[in-house]
Amino acid sequence: MERQGFSFEIVKGGGAARLARFETPHGVMETPTFVAVGTQAAVKGVMPETVAATGTQVLFANTYHLYLRPGQEVVSRHGGLHRFMNWQGPIMTDSGGFQVFSLGASITHGVGKVANIFPDETGGVPVLDRSRSPQGDSLVEVGEEEVRFISHIDGSRHVFTPEKSIAVQRALGADIVLAFDECTSPLHDDVYTKQSAERTHRWAERCLAYFERHPPQHGYEQALYGIVQGGAVQAIREESAEVIAAMPFDGLAIGGNLGKSRQEMYLVLDWTLPRLPVEKPRHLLGIGDVPSLFEAVERGCDTFDCVAPTRNARNGALFCRFDDDGSPLANFRLNLRNARFASDLEPVDPSCDCPTCKHYSRAYLRHLFKADEQLAQQLATVHNLRFMARLCEEIRQSLRDDTFQELKRSWLEPSGVC
Amino acid sequence: MERQGFSFEIVKGGGAARLARFETPHGVMETPTFVAVGTQAAVKGVMPETVAATGTQVLFANTYHLYLRPGQEVVSRHGGLHRFMNWQGPIMTDSGGFQVFSLGASITHGVGKVANIFPDETGGVPVLDRSRSPQGDSLVEVGEEEVRFISHIDGSRHVFTPEKSIAVQRALGADIVLAFDECTSPLHDDVYTKQSAERTHRWAERCLAYFERHPPQHGYEQALYGIVQGGAVQAIREESAEVIAAMPFDGLAIGGNLGKSRQEMYLVLDWTLPRLPVEKPRHLLGIGDVPSLFEAVERGCDTFDCVAPTRNARNGALFCRFDDDGSPLANFRLNLRNARFASDLEPVDPSCDCPTCKHYSRAYLRHLFKADEQLAQQLATVHNLRFMARLCEEIRQSLRDDTFQELKRSWLEPSGVC
Repeated sequence: MERQGFSFEIVKGGGAARLARFETPHGVMETPTFVAVGTQAAVKGVMPETVAATGTQVLFANTYHLYLRPGQEVVSRHGGLHRFMNWQGPIMTDSGGFQVFSLGASITHGVGKVANIFPDETGGVPVLDRSRSPQGDSLVEVGEEEVRFISHIDGSRHVFTPEKSIAVQRALGADIVLAFDECTSPLHDDVYTKQSAERTHRWAERCLAYFERHPPQHGYEQALYGIVQGGAVQAIREESAEVIAAMPFDGLAIGGNLGKSRQEMYLVLDWTLPRLPVEKPRHLLGIGDVPSLFEAVERGCDTFDCVAPTRNARNGALFCRFDDDGSPLANFRLNLRNARFASDLEPVDPSCDCPTCKHYSRAYLRHLFKADEQLAQQLATVHNLRFMARLCEEIRQSLRDDTFQELKRSWLEPSGVC
Repeated sequence: MERQGFSFEIVKGGGAARLARFETPHGVMETPTFVAVGTQAAVKGVMPETVAATGTQVLFANTYHLYLRPGQEVVSRHGGLHRFMNWQGPIMTDSGGFQVFSLGASITHGVGKVANIFPDETGGVPVLDRSRSPQGDSLVEVGEEEVRFISHIDGSRHVFTPEKSIAVQRALGADIVLAFDECTSPLHDDVYTKQSAERTHRWAERCLAYFERHPPQHGYEQALYGIVQGGAVQAIREESAEVIAAMPFDGLAIGGNLGKSRQEMYLVLDWTLPRLPVEKPRHLLGIGDVPSLFEAVERGCDTFDCVAPTRNARNGALFCRFDDDGSPLANFRLNLRNARFASDLEPVDPSCDCPTCKHYSRAYLRHLFKADEQLAQQLATVHNLRFMARLCEEIRQSLRDDTFQELKRSWLEPSGVC
């Protein structure tokens, strides 16, 4: 990478999988690594120093959310996200594309729908009714030039363009920013998926142009990633990979509809990754379950963001490989709300070195969950983030030792997901 | 104090106010000190090491809550509260009396009310309808021998006696435990208040007897405090103070109805404290606002528990002496939800040394509160606990330096509450 303060050095990369050292203006990540999500400039319920102590190297924040609240100007006045949220390490921001589309009820593409999208042209706040989407109403309208959407917070109206997305991300000041893209869903047909991918390619060019014309604002460079789209359609996905790969992005992200099953996602990765330049970092958007992580690393992905570890933690699902009898746990989870833990003095995972497992029993955690104490969510989040960090540490060590396949089998075979 | 592991040494005590060193089996407190509340064996939303780092020396947990959930047996199996909740320092538990009475809708004292109190004798769960209290129904029935109440959690029926309260507190294993008392309210007449205080005195004898017959369970001694009742009626309060003071308790607490205003509470303290033995520690139950703390210290109180600092924090009220223009803040609070802080880069209190003030702006805190991020409550709680700890540090220093009156005036005169 040619940006000042950035370097992406593949330390070991026999097959597609690679171990790398990724330097950013806010420190080095060793990859493959999981990216913890802090949507609104906070990892929910956990102080940043506690997040860092889990071994988490990098955070992912959301442009859509921060644009709407508190607004990028406020963040910018702090000198960017790092100072605003007191996170010293690298940060990524998405482009806002995914949220614009996923928080809209569904995507409509007709003309003349503005009256439906903005039903109250007199200035009142439209009611946000997701149930109306089957009738063709939507909170989002996609055009070649711009996307119009209604805030999920207060019903206010907004316009995003590729340029606007980059401008907001320049103000937010993450180390790694993403090009603005349209996210299609499995409900879209091939014709629309192809049109959409091509529009995303044109938006990618506009993002690059705007990014290069507008320098960083906080005294350090930012890296811009392009996003491969194309749904789960081989020809479209392959073409998107080739088009985006040919553009002068600093890194590549794989986004959008990745299919309806893990197997379909693996196919999407098979179509995509061989078409991406080896020397650039690759990010897989929104994926963080254990089997997918192994399969994506195997195919050459470097970083992964996903809300699952933190969201599951808040719901009482703590990540763990084996149950007490040695049997593999479904989805690598223990549900700490379960009555069987009511007087269980053991830690969540006796083999875990996180503060939660070192200092607290399952009975205490269950008590906190049953009593609706926020500390439950915090302690659970710390454990799940440490689980993800340790998993990535094991993966990196196996790449160093040429034992990745053995590690993958040891994790996935007992669960039957290999 | 003659319990092993305990000593209460008055370091300086010219007038009624005193600076003391209070040793417990789980470490030393310097008093006067604020006791942070961790009702359900957790200071809401904050890890214990973070609580300790604020300078908080001692926690207060609730027997009523922990008896109902998770049950004292579970806590006992962990070796007591300290290990259960990972708090290394001293802990106090109340007796359950206050919650039994305050979580009941109102207190009824007639005979033959059992059918009203436990409306569903067939075993179903009674509906907990506080609004029925004006009709004389209640969740609580007080008898000489026992108190019957309905759980606020699931409507289950329970009986507490003085002996049961001590048994539960022996199992919980706090360093300091409280005798079981009845809390009267300002709505009770003098006749009832007197009858109730006398019953509380008989319960105090029963607590002492049970406590001495049943040794501690976790390998260290506990100290038992008696509670002075008597409402806001001078003769009854004075008599209660004398009766409780004459019993062989390790310390004394002042509880119940302390009047309808701060001025009335100061009178209650004036009636009570001169009647308590100088050499025993004194705890003021449920009081923690700044003016009351100064007045109670001045009259000889050593420790104080109150939910206000933590509860206010969760509601966005951060403790601070002065506004930006130097004017005193009403109730020593800044409301961080206020729009004026939307892009305010200053810390909550530039003179504060807490992690929240060191690392975060008012704008960030306001953003977290507006975005319903739990981290807001955590960061605010840390600040308010540090505020209380610093206030107590200043008070102790002033007692050491014989400048308590000057300190009190400097805090209270600008606010007009002196």
